[in-house]
Amino acid sequence: MHNPLQTSGWNLADWQAAQKDGQGLQRLQALLAVLKKDQEKDTAWIALAEVSGLEADWQQLEARQQAGETLPLMGVPFAIKDNIDAKGWPTTAACPAFSYQAEKDAQVVAELKQAGAILIGKTNLDQFATGLVGTRSPYGAVPNSFNPDYVSGGSSSGSASVVARGLVPFALGTDTAGSGRVPAGFNNIVGLKPTRGWLSTSGVVPACRTLDCVSVFALTVEDALQVAELAAGATPDASDPWSRTHPQTTPVALPERPRLAIPANLEFFGDRQMQTAFAKARAELETLAELVEIDFSAFSELAALLYQGPWVAERTHALGSLLDQDPSAIDPSVYKIVSQGVDFSALDYFAAEYRRQELSRQIQQQLAEVDALVVPTSPTIRTLAEMEKEPLVYNSQFGTYTNFTNLADLSALALPAGFRDDGLPAGITLIATAWQDRALAEFGQRWQAQQALPLGATQREYSTPSQRIRPPAPGAVRLAVVG
Amino acid sequence: MHNPLQTSGWNLADWQAAQKDGQGLQRLQALLAVLKKDQEKDTAWIALAEVSGLEADWQQLEARQQAGETLPLMGVPFAIKDNIDAKGWPTTAACPAFSYQAEKDAQVVAELKQAGAILIGKTNLDQFATGLVGTRSPYGAVPNSFNPDYVSGGSSSGSASVVARGLVPFALGTDTAGSGRVPAGFNNIVGLKPTRGWLSTSGVVPACRTLDCVSVFALTVEDALQVAELAAGATPDASDPWSRTHPQTTPVALPERPRLAIPANLEFFGDRQMQTAFAKARAELETLAELVEIDFSAFSELAALLYQGPWVAERTHALGSLLDQDPSAIDPSVYKIVSQGVDFSALDYFAAEYRRQELSRQIQQQLAEVDALVVPTSPTIRTLAEMEKEPLVYNSQFGTYTNFTNLADLSALALPAGFRDDGLPAGITLIATAWQDRALAEFGQRWQAQQALPLGATQREYSTPSQRIRPPAPGAVRLAVVG
Repeated sequence: MHNPLQTSGWNLADWQAAQKDGQGLQRLQALLAVLKKDQEKDTAWIALAEVSGLEADWQQLEARQQAGETLPLMGVPFAIKDNIDAKGWPTTAACPAFSYQAEKDAQVVAELKQAGAILIGKTNLDQFATGLVGTRSPYGAVPNSFNPDYVSGGSSSGSASVVARGLVPFALGTDTAGSGRVPAGFNNIVGLKPTRGWLSTSGVVPACRTLDCVSVFALTVEDALQVAELAAGATPDASDPWSRTHPQTTPVALPERPRLAIPANLEFFGDRQMQTAFAKARAELETLAELVEIDFSAFSELAALLYQGPWVAERTHALGSLLDQDPSAIDPSVYKIVSQGVDFSALDYFAAEYRRQELSRQIQQQLAEVDALVVPTSPTIRTLAEMEKEPLVYNSQFGTYTNFTNLADLSALALPAGFRDDGLPAGITLIATAWQDRALAEFGQRWQAQQALPLGATQREYSTPSQRIRPPAPGAVRLAVVG
Repeated sequence: MHNPLQTSGWNLADWQAAQKDGQGLQRLQALLAVLKKDQEKDTAWIALAEVSGLEADWQQLEARQQAGETLPLMGVPFAIKDNIDAKGWPTTAACPAFSYQAEKDAQVVAELKQAGAILIGKTNLDQFATGLVGTRSPYGAVPNSFNPDYVSGGSSSGSASVVARGLVPFALGTDTAGSGRVPAGFNNIVGLKPTRGWLSTSGVVPACRTLDCVSVFALTVEDALQVAELAAGATPDASDPWSRTHPQTTPVALPERPRLAIPANLEFFGDRQMQTAFAKARAELETLAELVEIDFSAFSELAALLYQGPWVAERTHALGSLLDQDPSAIDPSVYKIVSQGVDFSALDYFAAEYRRQELSRQIQQQLAEVDALVVPTSPTIRTLAEMEKEPLVYNSQFGTYTNFTNLADLSALALPAGFRDDGLPAGITLIATAWQDRALAEFGQRWQAQQALPLGATQREYSTPSQRIRPPAPGAVRLAVVG
């Protein structure tokens, strides 16, 4: 896609370096001007910053710098999915009837602003983050950044699109079923789905409150991890009852030649191109890791529980009175799913919860035998036209390798993994137990360096990062437990 | 109560020492003979061992010893609540229509037998462990071991009674709402409610499967802790999906002068004797600890959620078809509670779960400021006659200081704390965050040594244990984090 911007495809280091040159504000103004010019035809954005707001933000940051603060993301633009609050902006969750003016920043946004980042826009999504497709929005379907006939994936469709196209170096999404990974896979970018409770969900419109995560999209693994570390903040968010304390002792790397599990029976729903792409990725993985096949049935059964089980009632709860009072305001596919929540009893819930616990335990035991699991990010992709015909079935297929993750309390990292013959990206996802986020990133960086694919849809070359992923910044007392 | 037994009121050390003298089997036979003679009028037992079974058990243990095994509980008799499986015994859950023959030992029973203990009987309970009173059983109400006009407390009524009367040195109960603590408080014994997931619940009839714990009754804190350590086993039970790995680093002691929270507003429901007894205990606690008053409202609101909220549906789930097919087989009070479970929707569940999460977080934050919380074990006690008039209201009052514990994932230790003017025991309970079991026991031992009350209802004097509670046996790698 043509983009007249100097900053197109810049990664975090590019922005961090450039914004020190005295032209920082002008650079952001130029970016905003281009985004505004294209806004009408770019369905990825729901809202963009105002020029005046940008100037005010910039002046505030400069004042903080002059007062001696160190701002690791000084003047770096970013986008957030429009189910995340930003003070003074409306939060729509892609449902105008639901929209409200946010009175404060979501905690993750506050942390990133604290680090110096500047919010440039809010992005489109599958309404109420219910979907993995990117088509369920009154603001329009977000097209795939490689081929506009295809879906972008969702629900964090807009955030993935603006990163893939190199408009911003990173964006926040959310991930309950796989919304932070599927669109990363469909757009050749990195999607970091952190351990539940690491990044605060305060100020995020809930989908399934007990499962929701804020996720990070970036062009490279090191950028995604750096943003996640900053968005998490130094201590757990006391205002988020689901926040958890990061354990003092967690692995920061996989072994030199890790042992990776791979499902013994892979399902691609007849998508031969995706199957071929994954076979190729698998062969390349074997140069970096030992692969062992595992029985995937517990993962599959757990994945099915997410949308077929009582957790749908969390989505119903989140919509509140809107569901009864203004059903026409809700996307028909979303309505079909969310309205089912009232059919489940507490007895149904506990029966499913018991099964979830059993399956999670099996999964934990299987993952204890390996360093991580590797799966296709999505088994297949569809065109926008196909999606209209089977909005629920195809959506559900996309979640084959993602839906179990938060139910089993796992960490995950979606990575670019080459291209199909038709030019669409394929992706793989690394999955491990909770708090393995840094270890997955360490190996993910090795994988990305080995692949050295162009970044996102920008056609920019991959360049070896100046340093390998290491334990977090001084001050944090952490022990490296490797292997 | 008169008891003609040589072994009456023996603690674990007494039994451990004596059973090495070659008279071990005879000693157990003498115990069993007395229990069988009294069985008809002793409502604490639902079933007793057979003489032949005792002999077979003994011979097996001797063979294992001769083969070189070390059996820390060699020949020590114990009892279990009759909702816990023991191979070859029926499990009734105090409901004959529900009864089944257990094909294997519950994991905790297997661990204790592995350590050499001998199961001498199964004890009465509030049916399906639903109650805190000890009266809801077709096998009869279990009277208080100090005054038979009063309730024993429940639901682990029989296990508390046989320990208080010195028939066995320890017994297992279960604790969902407070069933391992209230009867300890009413019978002047120790009730250790371990952190959820430390002791396996495999082979235990569920009450609320997501909350249930196996608990330990003993005459002294050191005995309760030793039994808990052995019942927990060396590694988490892989067959119990709710089992958790004990963290490597946990506190093993409270500071020399701990800071203990106490509710600012204490509720005794007009029971002046309990109020006076607690005031006396509080004054004595002040010689060992610094007491700070805290707002108890989050604890109280969470406590109310347990029986008024959707967790009742877990009890409904546990009864399965019995509830519809044979309601007359169910105790009327139990039926009244358990049949309400069908009225809750999954939406109700999630609304309550969200509130639980918020309240738990508040409670965790309050407990982070202190070393532990101290509360009356029960705010009041009632006669059997009173209980018949208000079976639900009084039951609910007994849970005032217990019902929140498992919902908030806490550890707890019920301790004897002197006597009321009417001669009935009063109790206090120490409560802390998860995995503080050993630290609570260490302080509990100090408290018991300072109090030096007669043990249970045996009139045996307290004697200072040969050693203070310390980190567990060699082999376990644990770090002591004190203070």
